[in-house]
Amino acid sequence: MPSPGGAGLHDCPVGIVGLGLIGGSLGLDLQAAGVQVRALVHRHSTAERARERGLAQTVDTNPELLQGCDLIVLALPLDRLLDPPPELLAALPRDAVITDVGSVKQPVLERWQRWHPRFVASHPMAGTAEAGVEAGQRNLFRGRPWVATPNGQTDTAALALVQQLAELVGAAWLQCPATAHDQAVALISHMPVLVSAALLEAADRGGEAAAAATLVRQLASSGFADTSRIGGGNPELGTLMARCNRDAVLQALGHYRQQLEQLETLVEQEHWGALQQRLEGCQQLRPGFL
Amino acid sequence: MPSPGGAGLHDCPVGIVGLGLIGGSLGLDLQAAGVQVRALVHRHSTAERARERGLAQTVDTNPELLQGCDLIVLALPLDRLLDPPPELLAALPRDAVITDVGSVKQPVLERWQRWHPRFVASHPMAGTAEAGVEAGQRNLFRGRPWVATPNGQTDTAALALVQQLAELVGAAWLQCPATAHDQAVALISHMPVLVSAALLEAADRGGEAAAAATLVRQLASSGFADTSRIGGGNPELGTLMARCNRDAVLQALGHYRQQLEQLETLVEQEHWGALQQRLEGCQQLRPGFL
Repeated sequence: MPSPGGAGLHDCPVGIVGLGLIGGSLGLDLQAAGVQVRALVHRHSTAERARERGLAQTVDTNPELLQGCDLIVLALPLDRLLDPPPELLAALPRDAVITDVGSVKQPVLERWQRWHPRFVASHPMAGTAEAGVEAGQRNLFRGRPWVATPNGQTDTAALALVQQLAELVGAAWLQCPATAHDQAVALISHMPVLVSAALLEAADRGGEAAAAATLVRQLASSGFADTSRIGGGNPELGTLMARCNRDAVLQALGHYRQQLEQLETLVEQEHWGALQQRLEGCQQLRPGFL
Repeated sequence: MPSPGGAGLHDCPVGIVGLGLIGGSLGLDLQAAGVQVRALVHRHSTAERARERGLAQTVDTNPELLQGCDLIVLALPLDRLLDPPPELLAALPRDAVITDVGSVKQPVLERWQRWHPRFVASHPMAGTAEAGVEAGQRNLFRGRPWVATPNGQTDTAALALVQQLAELVGAAWLQCPATAHDQAVALISHMPVLVSAALLEAADRGGEAAAAATLVRQLASSGFADTSRIGGGNPELGTLMARCNRDAVLQALGHYRQQLEQLETLVEQEHWGALQQRLEGCQQLRPGFL
């Protein structure tokens, strides 16, 4: 039975809603740690495949499965997390701890705190290029940050249980305000997708304009592959991030444009000493982000 | 003796001026292919280390060493290539074939065709993060493009000898006009350095503005590492590329800004369908550049 106080992860089953990369990986790691896992999925075909892969001890499409879970992890895409089906909301036990894994926190926190008294907004920062029921893998979270964004309303026992979950799968627990999280991920993840996408488009259009469309492709090397990787990634995900974190992304783009314009001016005005100093600064900055 | 006609690489020693990454790697591969290599370096300490590493059969600081070479590769940094010491110019045999490895071609071609009748502008597109006399390695050029940018004045026998050299070390030979080369490398290599550098600066400044300087560093993951790699690279090289290819870099930045501004407008105006279409286009574009 769920207990509002010092419940442990091994006392009751953990529920996972959605068995994509994050949900599936969590299911594998939790079971390996001896935790009972029940997973709710949308489609029968997903349920079948998830059972074959052993992503949870119980997999079903019926939300009733969540009854008796002490902790439920909403491992849904951002758009479904922000606009969940009413039957999911109705099926969440009021005394269970609910957390999410969304990559934007302020809008999630605002809505879900209205919807559930024991909601904890969180974001495990782990990912691969893979998605879907085949993507889940062991040890995805090991050594990666798992950020929670509690506020004054957050239930502290609920927060402690989510921390226990994160640490059980080897993640590094962090806490910060939701707005700080959203601004930070805009700067290091969501805005860079657009920066990288524009680079692919510029190489394409610029190559055509110079009658060198084939040449730009022949000469592109590992440097271009690195810089264009996230811009050529999952389009749905890139759009969702911009949509759900719009203000912070626009603010981050403002910072970005300012820096790029300054660098462009140095090239235009041939201030090579100043440009080299700026690039030396960048060389010194980068290790701090690795 | 150098012969102006159908000389082969095995008939006379090949001269290499400079034993950094490109010069040193070329020295190793040519010797392995049975070619005699003589290398001219600037400092006695470099000569000593190059001899220890076996980068050439003969290494010296005296330009007289180049006498008797049929083909001489100028493996110098761009600034020294564009402003070579007079004693180097004086020591180049008039009937030898001279080529370079510079990453910008139009200004190199203009100057060197005035200075030497058998100059061939070329650019092996191979690199690692390493530089200096310790950087040279076997098989650096294997499968990589080696671009030559001949014009109407270029000696065709000289061009054929440089092609023989490129193919001997396993490179893929390409020819294009110097301006097309410079525009292409601006788009896929030189401009992206500034795009990537501005990203590091924006994450730093934006993080400070949001009082989240530590958080942006804690949350930065492999995506940010990829996108920021070339912006945090060698500052001298980044500056030299912008300086020696200024017009094409500014033009490429123009293309880039246009694309980024369009993407920013889609976010601002919340045209999520259109944004997703653009990102889908990017996803389709990228494999063409790999």
